[in-house]
Amino acid sequence: MNDGYLRTARFYETDGMQYVHHSNHIRWMEEARMDFMAKRGFSYREMEARGVVMPVVSVSCRYVKPILFDDTVVIYTSLDRMTGVRAKFSYRMETPQGELVAAGESEHCFLDEKTRVPVNLIKRWPEAFR
Amino acid sequence: MNDGYLRTARFYETDGMQYVHHSNHIRWMEEARMDFMAKRGFSYREMEARGVVMPVVSVSCRYVKPILFDDTVVIYTSLDRMTGVRAKFSYRMETPQGELVAAGESEHCFLDEKTRVPVNLIKRWPEAFR
Amino acid sequence: MNDGYLRTARFYETDGMQYVHHSNHIRWMEEARMDFMAKRGFSYREMEARGVVMPVVSVSCRYVKPILFDDTVVIYTSLDRMTGVRAKFSYRMETPQGELVAAGESEHCFLDEKTRVPVNLIKRWPEAFR
Amino acid sequence: MNDGYLRTARFYETDGMQYVHHSNHIRWMEEARMDFMAKRGFSYREMEARGVVMPVVSVSCRYVKPILFDDTVVIYTSLDRMTGVRAKFSYRMETPQGELVAAGESEHCFLDEKTRVPVNLIKRWPEAFR
Repeated sequence: MNDGYLRTARFYETDGMQYVHHSNHIRWMEEARMDFMAKRGFSYREMEARGVVMPVVSVSCRYVKPILFDDTVVIYTSLDRMTGVRAKFSYRMETPQGELVAAGESEHCFLDEKTRVPVNLIKRWPEAFR
Repeated sequence: MNDGYLRTARFYETDGMQYVHHSNHIRWMEEARMDFMAKRGFSYREMEARGVVMPVVSVSCRYVKPILFDDTVVIYTSLDRMTGVRAKFSYRMETPQGELVAAGESEHCFLDEKTRVPVNLIKRWPEAFR
Repeated sequence: MNDGYLRTARFYETDGMQYVHHSNHIRWMEEARMDFMAKRGFSYREMEARGVVMPVVSVSCRYVKPILFDDTVVIYTSLDRMTGVRAKFSYRMETPQGELVAAGESEHCFLDEKTRVPVNLIKRWPEAFR
Repeated sequence: MNDGYLRTARFYETDGMQYVHHSNHIRWMEEARMDFMAKRGFSYREMEARGVVMPVVSVSCRYVKPILFDDTVVIYTSLDRMTGVRAKFSYRMETPQGELVAAGESEHCFLDEKTRVPVNLIKRWPEAFR
């Protein structure tokens, strides 16, 4: 666990039910993941500068409590597994009071930006892993 | 299984990797589900007219092949379970040639639009289930 | 004027007011424009294959009538000006009954995909303009 | 003029050109406007609590410099006109170094949330205007 990523719901993220549309949780997980990585020395921009992209292999989310316009959630990200070739993250979204809002997971692989062939991030960027 | 729902990728759905962003598959599953329901006499609009909304309880997607701008996929939806109070759908996205692109699932509950209390859709809309 | 482009509002495009969010009209204009171009021999994909991208220089939209979930609009696109270096389009969104829903405009330039330097599309793709 | 609203581009906001898609500038204007209003005592949530919604009547944006993933822009909002029945805002997006990125405008009306009939915000919420 770690310090969370704060996110406040925008009006354009709500849908006709007046809830944040469930596809946006998936986008927020991306924001939280990139924030988590950047704080640990793996900014996505720098990874791209090394010619590596990180597409999503699978994603899931369980929705516990609806998020309304202007609500703030705290997103806690953990890196559950990192093999160099694949990485798995999990996410816990909570209200500022600590109530569970949603929980999700995502799996990723690493590809060479040009060839789109799998690469080992640890070999491609060893300094960051020391 | 059934006749599929055709969807062509828009430019604004692609991301900096030049792939359709993975959150859009979740949105396309919503389109395919509503199309599937409407063809079976359960248009979402009519369901809302009966005061019922159908939020997502959980969602998952496995990404097999990237979708590029202007690619067309065929989405096959199935209703795997329907208890009246909850429903579970699964989705298979294929190229027009039948190659697997992505596979997903979603679970839903039914709520009264005003009170947001769970309702049984079969009791609320019996004609549609005859 | 010309044959219109049909578009039905998705649930995820509505916002907490239960209207299609105004940013989506801008996205629909992109869809209508690309459809208009493709029907005239200028598919965006083929333009990209010639190493040309077409970013937006300005955009505007006037909203006359809200669009609700599942509403269908017909979008009529016209090419108002084409200099080779710049192009200007206008859009009229109507209900299937012909009532005005929204009206917009967009201006574009043409850039070399790699260098991002302005190019003249007529010189780069003369066959298409004959 | 005033203190700006800071916004960093998300990966999912970029498109296949690797620029932030032009429809997102319209969404960012909404964020900047709501932030501007909230800082002056007009939070959108409180306005909604008084039964008022504020749809967009027209919008425009001129794009000067592309925004790339992870770029930060500062958005300066001004209220150009407020009649009680209509309001007009303008926006200036700049790099942190003060270079112009985009400039836009939006016009709004005020409606009763239930009846969707125009209302005068100054009459409906006089305390806020004193």
